[in-house]
Amino acid sequence: MKIAHLVHLTESVPPGKYGGTERVVFHLTEELVRLGHDITLFASGDSTTSAKLVPMSERALKHTPLINRDAVMTHMLEYIWNVSHEFDMIHSHMDFVGFPLARRSAVPVITTIHGHLGAPELAQVYHEFWDIPLISISYSQRRPFPSNHWKANVYHGLPVDLYTFHSKGRGYLAFLGRISPEKSPDVAIRIAQRLGVPLFMAAKVDPVDRDYFEAQIAPLLSDPLIHFIGEITDVEKGDFLGNASAVLCPYRPEPFGLVVIEALACGTPVVTFRHGSFPEIIDHGCTGFLCLDEEEMTQAIRHIHEIDRQQCRTQFERRFTSARMATDYVKLYEQLLSETAIKRAA
Amino acid sequence: MKIAHLVHLTESVPPGKYGGTERVVFHLTEELVRLGHDITLFASGDSTTSAKLVPMSERALKHTPLINRDAVMTHMLEYIWNVSHEFDMIHSHMDFVGFPLARRSAVPVITTIHGHLGAPELAQVYHEFWDIPLISISYSQRRPFPSNHWKANVYHGLPVDLYTFHSKGRGYLAFLGRISPEKSPDVAIRIAQRLGVPLFMAAKVDPVDRDYFEAQIAPLLSDPLIHFIGEITDVEKGDFLGNASAVLCPYRPEPFGLVVIEALACGTPVVTFRHGSFPEIIDHGCTGFLCLDEEEMTQAIRHIHEIDRQQCRTQFERRFTSARMATDYVKLYEQLLSETAIKRAA
Repeated sequence: MKIAHLVHLTESVPPGKYGGTERVVFHLTEELVRLGHDITLFASGDSTTSAKLVPMSERALKHTPLINRDAVMTHMLEYIWNVSHEFDMIHSHMDFVGFPLARRSAVPVITTIHGHLGAPELAQVYHEFWDIPLISISYSQRRPFPSNHWKANVYHGLPVDLYTFHSKGRGYLAFLGRISPEKSPDVAIRIAQRLGVPLFMAAKVDPVDRDYFEAQIAPLLSDPLIHFIGEITDVEKGDFLGNASAVLCPYRPEPFGLVVIEALACGTPVVTFRHGSFPEIIDHGCTGFLCLDEEEMTQAIRHIHEIDRQQCRTQFERRFTSARMATDYVKLYEQLLSETAIKRAA
Repeated sequence: MKIAHLVHLTESVPPGKYGGTERVVFHLTEELVRLGHDITLFASGDSTTSAKLVPMSERALKHTPLINRDAVMTHMLEYIWNVSHEFDMIHSHMDFVGFPLARRSAVPVITTIHGHLGAPELAQVYHEFWDIPLISISYSQRRPFPSNHWKANVYHGLPVDLYTFHSKGRGYLAFLGRISPEKSPDVAIRIAQRLGVPLFMAAKVDPVDRDYFEAQIAPLLSDPLIHFIGEITDVEKGDFLGNASAVLCPYRPEPFGLVVIEALACGTPVVTFRHGSFPEIIDHGCTGFLCLDEEEMTQAIRHIHEIDRQQCRTQFERRFTSARMATDYVKLYEQLLSETAIKRAA
């Protein structure tokens, strides 16, 4: 199939460092190319891909503080509108930005929603575009708009060999993410302190979170149990997660949560709260623990040796590889194409 | 005629304080209603208008820091798309944001460009949408894209009775605007100092310009000739400008420059640089002086008594009232409607 993938231009594909959506789109498009599909990626010009790249900006827009960022997006959508007939299908990763194109395009457009849907200002645009076929990345993500036109749910996946299995944890807890209130790093610190177990924190601090870091987190880092190691590379991530006895993800609800499947890929059990997408990814008592509060989380860590690390890896291989993700999408593309053919024949 | 006017939602119509576009749209739509047209204004819900108001957000978006500002705009454009058939004509003040609608709407869409066109990231979107009928607010504004589909030039206007004529200046120079590098307040200060004439500066300092103000301007304010009086209201503006012997507008090129016609409305001559829209608004030696550099500007002030203040007011009344602006637009609407009728008949 000949398929166009559209992404926001803020980040390159794959992203420089942080950027879940662009990482997933990278692995998905690589896998689709490997399966023999004709994939075109409309993305920033500094992207790297085995697909055909059509650069919609010279570089990722985060590197060029533009006054008229919307001008680049308006041009991009019109450009794609003009060439859309060259494709069998358009797969948008641009959220509501692509909805006007999706409504009017002669070619079927499918949109994977990558973000949270909780912000109140999203209500009008999601209600207006009730008919646009959407793909969720977890069932919990759909909650704010249960009646929109959800065609399927496709969990994210990562290449099966991106991280290797680590059969034994080395007695520390790991926290990976941004230092921001949504990630609740303070919860991870308090749990490590209550247990007297070392916590290694690999985390970036965005400028917007600098005040939060200084006021709420920095004062807690003097405890010799807590090791703040800053941002790490993808290569370092494997050992960082794989050598942990458990990965603590005390995050607020997320639409997916890539760190969770990264941990499982390494064989490391995950301890999270019982909300957002986490109950869909973690099997309680099998690949980690889903907890109601800090007290339960602390107890869960005490029982972490009961989790079979091989099971974590097996569940990752069964449910969260990019090969599985690509296969799911191909099925969906085929279904949409045959639905479109039936509609045209009718 | 039944006409929809579309504005950005960042500011209300009229704007709280600063906001040239929203002030012009306010006066234009008021005038069109007065002329008996059926005007609908799609704007933020805290707008005030004699037209029918269709609120596209509860309040001006600048009051509500949203994560997904684009979601509100995407909804707005689709909403208008859905109701566009109810109007004879759509008049967009939303720049390139309305271009996709303009290209596909069954109803004619005319777009007044209110901003600068110099930013390099605008090139792609203006080249893509070469066919969209545009109105400039000065001929100089068109320079970056001379080959786009410019239908007409319509200078801004203000109500004839908004400011009253002041027959005599009281010996001071006035500077009105933001304190920012684009407005060159330092030039105004240096000229006043060279002449030994008092300068009154009515200017706001935006958070983004705070550093510039502290480093470049604040140190100059200790001079007893320089009177920094901060932000002033519209009511105060009449006497502030009207009692000045000259208004100094040493701004970088602007697409129009409302302060210039506000000054003329009060009868006060204007001294500017010979660039941007200024040579189209100021008659050199008649309503003010157009200068090449600071030296010429200083000389010009020495000759300011040669300008007949009555001429300034007369030129304002002849060229820059909102009644004239509305009449220009009505002619243009009629022309566009007849062109559309001819195209449909063909």
